[in-house]
Amino acid sequence: MTSLSPSDKALVPFVSVDQMMKLIHHISVEEMMSGIADYIEADFKRWELFDKTPRVASHSEKGVIELMPTSDGDVYGFKYVNGHPSNTADGLQTVTAFGLLADVASGYPVLLSEMTMLTAMRTAATSALVARVLAPKNARVMAMIGNGSQSEFQSLAMKTIVGIEEIRLFDTDPKAIEKCAVNLQGQGLRVVKCASAEDAMEGAQIITTCTADKQYATILTDNMVGNGVHINAIGGDCPGKTELAPAILHRAEIFVEYPEQTRIEGEIQQLDPDHPVTEFWQVLTGQAAGRRDDKQITLFDSVGFAIEDFSALRYVRDRIADTGLFHPLDLLADPDDPRDLFGMLQRAKG
Amino acid sequence: MTSLSPSDKALVPFVSVDQMMKLIHHISVEEMMSGIADYIEADFKRWELFDKTPRVASHSEKGVIELMPTSDGDVYGFKYVNGHPSNTADGLQTVTAFGLLADVASGYPVLLSEMTMLTAMRTAATSALVARVLAPKNARVMAMIGNGSQSEFQSLAMKTIVGIEEIRLFDTDPKAIEKCAVNLQGQGLRVVKCASAEDAMEGAQIITTCTADKQYATILTDNMVGNGVHINAIGGDCPGKTELAPAILHRAEIFVEYPEQTRIEGEIQQLDPDHPVTEFWQVLTGQAAGRRDDKQITLFDSVGFAIEDFSALRYVRDRIADTGLFHPLDLLADPDDPRDLFGMLQRAKG
Repeated sequence: MTSLSPSDKALVPFVSVDQMMKLIHHISVEEMMSGIADYIEADFKRWELFDKTPRVASHSEKGVIELMPTSDGDVYGFKYVNGHPSNTADGLQTVTAFGLLADVASGYPVLLSEMTMLTAMRTAATSALVARVLAPKNARVMAMIGNGSQSEFQSLAMKTIVGIEEIRLFDTDPKAIEKCAVNLQGQGLRVVKCASAEDAMEGAQIITTCTADKQYATILTDNMVGNGVHINAIGGDCPGKTELAPAILHRAEIFVEYPEQTRIEGEIQQLDPDHPVTEFWQVLTGQAAGRRDDKQITLFDSVGFAIEDFSALRYVRDRIADTGLFHPLDLLADPDDPRDLFGMLQRAKG
Repeated sequence: MTSLSPSDKALVPFVSVDQMMKLIHHISVEEMMSGIADYIEADFKRWELFDKTPRVASHSEKGVIELMPTSDGDVYGFKYVNGHPSNTADGLQTVTAFGLLADVASGYPVLLSEMTMLTAMRTAATSALVARVLAPKNARVMAMIGNGSQSEFQSLAMKTIVGIEEIRLFDTDPKAIEKCAVNLQGQGLRVVKCASAEDAMEGAQIITTCTADKQYATILTDNMVGNGVHINAIGGDCPGKTELAPAILHRAEIFVEYPEQTRIEGEIQQLDPDHPVTEFWQVLTGQAAGRRDDKQITLFDSVGFAIEDFSALRYVRDRIADTGLFHPLDLLADPDDPRDLFGMLQRAKG
């Protein structure tokens, strides 16, 4: 019976993990990261247009589950994401995610997508976009401290968007270093396995920290960090989880996504609530200064913000139409007469 | 290649609209409403255990998109729901929804479900659960004012849970009355089509209002409502959207789900912020009184709360296992080595 088939409006395009991976390879990892970075830059430049709210977090002893909504007035988006550092020991991902876009005018969802892969892509794209603007000119070497899920994505984004040529790996677990080094083979990067964080930072203009302990940790101490570097701190992203010694924060010019959220979740939760920070979008629009000289330490205290997910989902939506890399999902009840939900239910009987 | 198939952990059971309708008929509409009411009652009795937060709303000129999260410490749930009164004119549903349950310990989603149908079921189950406790004893007649999507569900829940025998229909649109009357044929109810709201309330012990205008409307005026009735006001559920004249509110004993949310969205947004209200869960646990005498007007100022969705999703999760009425959805990236997301991506390449 055709009347029982869902209408077009009832079907929401769904991008599965398998389809996301196919989409990434169809476009290529590096081109897709550049594309997402362009979308993020475009959305950051119209920052004031967006509905912004700190993420809605549900904390437990083991981790956190968060909803990150935003809207530009025409399109609404949100991401579901968890952060469970102890998952790794159980063979699970620390972070999994999915996201949705909806039409503001009707409230109807228009895209549902896996976002575990996509979050890694957008986090790396954001880091590299920020580093392109803030890192010392001609940065060619990056220290990658913490060689987990995000490390290869970070490395490739820094290569393609910033021009990084050498990645210096360090992790407290040698197996993670080895995994990352193997994965980065043949990707056009010089990869150096290092014995310590200090060793990894040798000659690096960019220092990326991405470790996953949910506790105050000090991955970088003050005396380890010289002048003139850009620090890309992406591991601290919830209350009680930080990676940098406070003394480094005091020496650095700090750039953030959304101060209200970063003061709760970022490295700067260690500082006074009125410690000056610069909103990165204002650097893009010319309302605030970026790096001022070669000696300065710039620090991107990254926690991940809803607009970045929104940009990434917009990118995916624009790219799936001609690839067919989605399933139509029967997510919405859409009776012929919108007031006749019960009639629709009755007609589905037997 | 088996290594490319998603693992069990990566697959999230998804209940489509078609499967939800099959599940409802498999169980039967009335038995499922009773079952959901039992789950809601059980969850309301352990109210203090839940993480509660007012819904996170994104308002626009045309409507609202909301996220409604909650957690009992073991299971996390949220619902996405929109409210767009003008959608009906465009042939779309005013309200569409979907929801999710996740495991708090790992953050992994364990159920994704359509919730347009399920919300109608849980809203009716909640209304009837409350009426069973608060309405005058031996209530047999209900006025159903507003005969849209929710009206048949409300009527059947009041029949099966409260023992209502006669439904008196009124809507400003005669076609809506006719639709509702036709849908309720053969459902074991005496159905009376009425020419006015006053006519509909003739002899009714329960008055249900469910209209969808996003504006201050006065569906019931003070002189229309006699003593000794129970009013089930489910249509007012966002700022600026109410159905009852303030004078009725002043004559009634008001029961709510979650005061912090109801004061923003419910009928009581018309009253002082400290106007006394009773939390319905406290009536269930014996901490607060329900109806005190036959003359009293009891009013359930219902806006819909996250715990009701949580209960409904729990019910669905418990009932789909043996019916197979779900699709396994490839929503989560779950690499063999949880730190090797990039390796999983690389192995998916051509």
